[in-house]
Amino acid sequence: MPELRKDPVVGRWVIMSTERSKRPSDFRKTHAEPGNNGACVFCYGMEYLTPPEVLAYREPGSVANSPGWRVRAVPNKFPALRIEGSAGRRGEGLYDMMNGIGAHEVIIDTPIHDQGMADLAPHQIEEVLWAYRDRVLDLARDERFRYVIIFKNHGADAGASLEHPHSQLIALPIIPLSVQQELRGSNDYYQGKERCIFCDIVSQESQDGRRVVIENDNFIVSCPFAARFPFELLVIPKVHSSHFVYATAAEYRALANSLKITLGALKAALDDPPFNYIIHSAPLREAESKHYHWHVEITPALTKVAGFEVGTGFYINPVPPEDAAAHLRNIMSEGDVVSLKQVQAS
Amino acid sequence: MPELRKDPVVGRWVIMSTERSKRPSDFRKTHAEPGNNGACVFCYGMEYLTPPEVLAYREPGSVANSPGWRVRAVPNKFPALRIEGSAGRRGEGLYDMMNGIGAHEVIIDTPIHDQGMADLAPHQIEEVLWAYRDRVLDLARDERFRYVIIFKNHGADAGASLEHPHSQLIALPIIPLSVQQELRGSNDYYQGKERCIFCDIVSQESQDGRRVVIENDNFIVSCPFAARFPFELLVIPKVHSSHFVYATAAEYRALANSLKITLGALKAALDDPPFNYIIHSAPLREAESKHYHWHVEITPALTKVAGFEVGTGFYINPVPPEDAAAHLRNIMSEGDVVSLKQVQAS
Repeated sequence: MPELRKDPVVGRWVIMSTERSKRPSDFRKTHAEPGNNGACVFCYGMEYLTPPEVLAYREPGSVANSPGWRVRAVPNKFPALRIEGSAGRRGEGLYDMMNGIGAHEVIIDTPIHDQGMADLAPHQIEEVLWAYRDRVLDLARDERFRYVIIFKNHGADAGASLEHPHSQLIALPIIPLSVQQELRGSNDYYQGKERCIFCDIVSQESQDGRRVVIENDNFIVSCPFAARFPFELLVIPKVHSSHFVYATAAEYRALANSLKITLGALKAALDDPPFNYIIHSAPLREAESKHYHWHVEITPALTKVAGFEVGTGFYINPVPPEDAAAHLRNIMSEGDVVSLKQVQAS
Repeated sequence: MPELRKDPVVGRWVIMSTERSKRPSDFRKTHAEPGNNGACVFCYGMEYLTPPEVLAYREPGSVANSPGWRVRAVPNKFPALRIEGSAGRRGEGLYDMMNGIGAHEVIIDTPIHDQGMADLAPHQIEEVLWAYRDRVLDLARDERFRYVIIFKNHGADAGASLEHPHSQLIALPIIPLSVQQELRGSNDYYQGKERCIFCDIVSQESQDGRRVVIENDNFIVSCPFAARFPFELLVIPKVHSSHFVYATAAEYRALANSLKITLGALKAALDDPPFNYIIHSAPLREAESKHYHWHVEITPALTKVAGFEVGTGFYINPVPPEDAAAHLRNIMSEGDVVSLKQVQAS
């Protein structure tokens, strides 16, 4: 059984994995993940190689765990956490720990093996977003879980171990440290000003314009003022809301369009860079809050993150966000990014 | 002039570098750092290739910026921050920023090109520690600076861009986010219990023993209970103290011995793995505090850190710290690790 352990000083929870456990000899100069040899387990016809699907948007008449799906969610075959059991919260001297319960699922974005998120049509991206929502709402019924992290690793340098485009979600009985920090920081701001800090960021970025990549009725995509990484991006809904899963249908459609354009620009500008995105949302089942505002963080993996950054929480960014945003706007306005133009016109 | 910018939600400061700035085209599938071609700038006889030294421990009669040194500190040739100017703290709407003032120095651990920290004799490591101390005390006289990060990147995968063994320090007009978190967390604990949490960790780990790698009169080296990474290590002085620079001569000697043994075991166990270490200490010139206790974090770079970990602050560790500590203890007790035996006996 994996175990969740809490750092006693800063409150960070860590999974001590057992399913994925390694022996010291595994690290002796063999740092690479095994390649994706032979047939892809996420392609049509290989459905029997994954655990049975927990969700699929399918063509009429197609059968579960067989071809015909457009988006498909399955439990991770090597889950970091186990779905069975109770939280078993306990202490050991000054330390806090609990059983490593949770869910770890893979959402296969598309049946097409070599179509990245930036290559999908907006309506396909929209379906991926609906799949995220449907899975979170299903998992939220399990009162043991307090948070679901939804994320995507694109490219080996961003941690993707399989090439076929997919997203992941991890349901947890705890709240990740970054979300704890955001909840605290946004609450502090609200106590002082009685305004949401993310709403204020939307308003200031929109007026300023230098860091904006795209803006539509529902979303603003900008390079954050204190970006840690070159070409880091922040996608914020304009209407205040704490939960990704309570977005409107119009918002999912607009978010899909915004991601299509943004990830397309990133791909064109940086030659299909590895990237991660993470959806930051309020903890499960918490009431809508005036201070917390959901958003999406997109971080291209262009620079090496080492122990220095992780150990200090201090970053050196060689590309000011104003320059990155200007470059992405230029890319979008160039005639050769045809697919982007088509999306913008649609 | 580089700029320091603060994330408005979580309070993280980021350097927007100008000296090191890159154009978007620099990232197009050329992620590798340039290699170390030709002569090494940190070797004897190459002193004229670095900025003039700010500290050197030298053989009697040897001349500044020429051979004869044992440890040598120089300003970084490509500093992330500038030493000249005022902080210039200012706001821009809801954002906070300041001039990118600070110091960025390199401490060359040894004149021998291929001698890693684990290969140095304990008395040589001790001199490196004294060099850290002397540089921090010198920089602490500059009231613009509030913190000095002392760290080492060993190996390209841990961010070292030059092979010759060296450490770095960065003096900052702000306090890094990780240190802010530790100060807050340890203060919260102290308010509740009137005890230092690090002293309690020393006591519990020593009694428990499962995670201890080595323990002597002055230090305990253990794999932390909630380790984020395989073989992560935490070095804590047993006598409570907030500042690394106020350690006693006996403590520097004991720390050098502890590092020699620990890094030697790590090298033997994992085939000279890339690693980082960071010294965590209280902010400059702050009075000795009852709740903050300096320590050293050592993080081998065995697993890839991607946007997921950075974006969530949530880690999955495939090697429980009890297993890592047992493995390191075994390595130390094996007869073939001769140099370690010698140190332990000395």
